[in-house]
Formats: sequence, C-alpha cells, structure tokens
Amino acid sequence: MYDLIIIGGGPAGMTAAIYAARQKMETLVVTKEFGGQMAHKAVNIENYPGFESISGLELISKFEDQMRKKGVKVLNEEVDEIKKEGDSFFVFTRDGQKLESKIVIVATGSEPRRLDVPGEEKYLGKGVSYCTTCDGPMFNQKNVAVIGGGDAGFETALFLTNYAKKIYIFEFADRLRACDENCQKVFSSGKVEIITSAELKEIKGADFVNQIVFKDRITGDEKTLGVEGVFIQVGYQPATSFLKNMVELNDRKEIIINFETFETKIPGLFAVGDVNAGKVKQVVVACGEGAQAVIYAYKYLNK
Amino acid sequence: MYDLIIIGGGPAGMTAAIYAARQKMETLVVTKEFGGQMAHKAVNIENYPGFESISGLELISKFEDQMRKKGVKVLNEEVDEIKKEGDSFFVFTRDGQKLESKIVIVATGSEPRRLDVPGEEKYLGKGVSYCTTCDGPMFNQKNVAVIGGGDAGFETALFLTNYAKKIYIFEFADRLRACDENCQKVFSSGKVEIITSAELKEIKGADFVNQIVFKDRITGDEKTLGVEGVFIQVGYQPATSFLKNMVELNDRKEIIINFETFETKIPGLFAVGDVNAGKVKQVVVACGEGAQAVIYAYKYLNK
Repeated sequence: MYDLIIIGGGPAGMTAAIYAARQKMETLVVTKEFGGQMAHKAVNIENYPGFESISGLELISKFEDQMRKKGVKVLNEEVDEIKKEGDSFFVFTRDGQKLESKIVIVATGSEPRRLDVPGEEKYLGKGVSYCTTCDGPMFNQKNVAVIGGGDAGFETALFLTNYAKKIYIFEFADRLRACDENCQKVFSSGKVEIITSAELKEIKGADFVNQIVFKDRITGDEKTLGVEGVFIQVGYQPATSFLKNMVELNDRKEIIINFETFETKIPGLFAVGDVNAGKVKQVVVACGEGAQAVIYAYKYLNK
Repeated sequence: MYDLIIIGGGPAGMTAAIYAARQKMETLVVTKEFGGQMAHKAVNIENYPGFESISGLELISKFEDQMRKKGVKVLNEEVDEIKKEGDSFFVFTRDGQKLESKIVIVATGSEPRRLDVPGEEKYLGKGVSYCTTCDGPMFNQKNVAVIGGGDAGFETALFLTNYAKKIYIFEFADRLRACDENCQKVFSSGKVEIITSAELKEIKGADFVNQIVFKDRITGDEKTLGVEGVFIQVGYQPATSFLKNMVELNDRKEIIINFETFETKIPGLFAVGDVNAGKVKQVVVACGEGAQAVIYAYKYLNK
C-alpha cells in the first residue's frame, strides 16, 4: 500500500516525485520511460530557468538523477487501468500487477497524434517515425517527407537537413503555421521543398517505405512522391486512455482539474503537466504543477 | 511605452522576463535587486528540478544571466505606485520616473515580517537583521538571539553555529514548530539554547544592540538577556504596499488572482509568485507562474 502512485515520468511526474520524497510519502513512480516529449525534442530547450540552452535528454537525466538520489521507487511498466474502491486506488499494469495507493497523480503527458492513414501503423519503425532525434540520423542522403507545417514540423525538417538529401514539408492548410525564425532557417538550407494544401492519403512500401500518396486539395488530384522516410509532426494528444471514463475531459481530451489544487473531480486523484486542461504546455509549468499537486496530496493524506 | 512592465526580480519575475523576450514583447523589469528571498536563503535549495543542491545566490545568478542574454531591459528602482488610465498602466518609481505600459506583471514576492517592537527599526543594520547569510558572519564569537522557532529560525540558528559563541532561539508559542531534522541538527550543535513561551518586548543598545527584553508568557515576568545580534525570523508578508487599494487581497494580504491565468480583477494586471494567493510558495512554482502569465499577457496584448 503506497501513499502515492505517480503515473508518468516526464518533468511533471519527476518533480512530483522529488517533492513527495521530501514530504516522506511512500511513493512509487510507474512509467515506461523517463522524459516524455522532452526526451525527443529536436532542438535545445532555452526557456527552462537555470539553463541557457540544454538538450531535452540532458535536462531529463538531471531530473532523473535528482529523483533517484532521493530514493524514489520506480516501476518501469505501462498502466492499463485505474479503479477507485472506497478510499483506495488500484493501479493495474500491463504485466498484470495490481498496485494500491491512497493517492494517484496522473502525469502521463501527451503522445504524438496519429494521422490514421493506411500504411502508417504498418511502416512504423520501417520508415514512419514520430521522433526525429531518435530516427533522423538513419536517413542519411535519403529523401524524406515531414507531415505538418507548424513549428514542430519545421524543427524536424531543420534537424533532418543535417542528414537527408532532400526534405519535403507537407502542410494540410494553404499556408504555413511555423514562426518566421524557423521558416527562414529552413528556407536558407536549400534542401527543403514546401507543399501546402496537401492531404496525406497513404504510405506505401515493400519492407520499408518507398512512396507516399497525397491529395492536392486545390485541384483534387492524387499524386505520389518517392521518399524513404515519413516524419509525422501533427501535434500531440493527452495520454488518458487508461483512465477510461473515470475523469472529465475537455474538448481537447485533456483532464479537467481545479487550477488551484490540480485535483480532479475524484478526491485523491490529481493531474499535472501536459495531460491536464492547463493551456501553457511548458517544461517549467509542468514542474511547478507537479510540486503543487504533492503539497495538496499531502494535505489530503493527513486530513 | 512598453508592452509589459514586470515589477520584481525574483524567480517569478525573471522567468516572466525570459518568456517575454522569447515572445518579442517590449519589456522592462523594474526591481531594486535580483533574487528576492532566494538570495538570502541560509541553506541550499534541493528541490528545484535540474539542480541537486545549489545555493540561492548561484541559482539566481543563472536566472539573471539567462535573462540578460535575451536582451531584457532592467531598471534598478523601487516602485512607489501604479495607476491605470484607459488602457495604459503608469508605473511611478521612487526616483520620480513615470513609466507607461500596456500590461503589468507584479512579481514582488514577500518581505520579512517585522515584529514592530521598540528598537527594531533603530538598530536595523546595527545588530538587528532579517538576513542571516548577509549578516551572520559578522557575529563571530558573539552571543546572538534568533526570534522565531519555526524552520526558518532553526535554519538561521544552524547557520549561525558556524560563527556565534552562543545562540538563543526565542519562540512565542509553548512548543517548537521546526521539523525533526532541523531540531536534531540544532540540538547536537551544543551551542543553542531554546526559550519557548517568550515574547520579545524591546531591543536595547548604545551604538549597537547589547540587550533584549522579553516576557516569560507563563509567569508574566519581564527578563533581559545580553546579546549583540538579533535575527528576526517570524515569517514573510507579501510586498503589495505600492498597489494601495488597486487590487483585492485575501486575509493573508496576498493578491487574489484567477488561478488559471494569473490575472487580477484589473484587466492586464497579473500577479505571480509568492505575492499572490497561491498556497505553495516554492521557487519552481513561482517560475511556472511567471511563464504562464506571459502567455496570457501576450493574448491580452494581441486581442
């Protein structure tokens, strides 16, 4: 029986763990991996106070070291479901464990949004990627497509200019959504071609991706393009599927919370970081929320 | 005419400045000094994610460097008053300047609470201190009193064991409020004597402090004790006097805000960090609030 189970190992979850250790709460962090989105960022973080410029991986490893040195227990597993019975929460993991705690803090963040086009799942890891820093270097001297013309897509393209021969950015809308600075860097690379008003229809290949099919949304024509990599960068969605219908979600599928305490409608169940309805999705904001939720969780435990 | 004036140079104000620079808002930070309470902490900070253990001064200088490298403008002045006329804010500084902006973020934190006893003001800097790290080393081999038996008082006493000959901790209540860990460290130093149920009545001296008068709250007797230093550690109060009756305060004199946006009842006036009604007074929480307020300020600016 734990005082607190924290689900998720990004900035919000790890900060919560650091604070829980200081409050001497019996705590378990359940997470498949540490870092969340931060571990896969293609560019350095320059707005986390204390570090002028630092890679996501480096910052995450500092958080993780700090947390582990405080003696926090960690279980590297995915959570399948949570149930509340009486005053207890039961957390069920994918490998069949049933864990019990008085409080749960959900800090599962968000995961890359899928396009749900044919071939997307089939070629995942065989040319299709949601993580540029993980997979980008494998596309040396190859032609690749980036799906999504926002800042994430442009930062992905910029990272890929170090490896790929040619990069096509596909944007659904008729104009780009990336900021001026990113646009200028991408244009000046000379390696990137932009295709707007384009809807991805299918990803094709043999063992690996070799072609994509897209619709020109102005003429209605379907076109094909030979590429060996497809980097999908069309936003994130909160990771809440394991909560089933347990909590209220807003129209962006984020968990609705009390903005002062970070508690959901279910007493003892808190949600912090990108998974909740807070609009400002930033590392330092997630950290601040993790710290606050633990203080309110501690009050809940002691009342 | 600025887009944004940030008043205060602690963690909340500096994070707001870093974010405002990234949003390319025309920003001025008005603060007498950088660091706020963090600059005067007697013990290292161990719960700011990214640093296992760091002195307040060191962390503050990292924040300040990061902010200054982004080109943020700074005015080292105290603010006397703010007025809103139409859509503009006017910020009046102690040296007579009148500054104009579209948005104000108040991040003035809190300041040490005064006891308001005779001699307290007279001997400030002449034996009376609110800042242990600033003044502690001057009391080498002297007898000193610490007023306040909470964690701040105990941490102060612990720091003073490195210098002072003997330290008396005075606590108003009949029991100590400090945590076990701090109590043990202080007791094992062999240099500290605890006096509970004691009310400080007066601080006396010639050019410098040489005596305090206190009432034994059980017997009612007044007693004197010869000390050369008095460290007052009885909590903090939000620094809001320059706001006059402009904003709503709660019963702890903190600024009432919308916990989602950090905006006060006055459109365009935000409050972040220890000065607002948020209950969790922590560095990383203040930083998160500074970041969020700027994003909402940016929306306000562009609507």
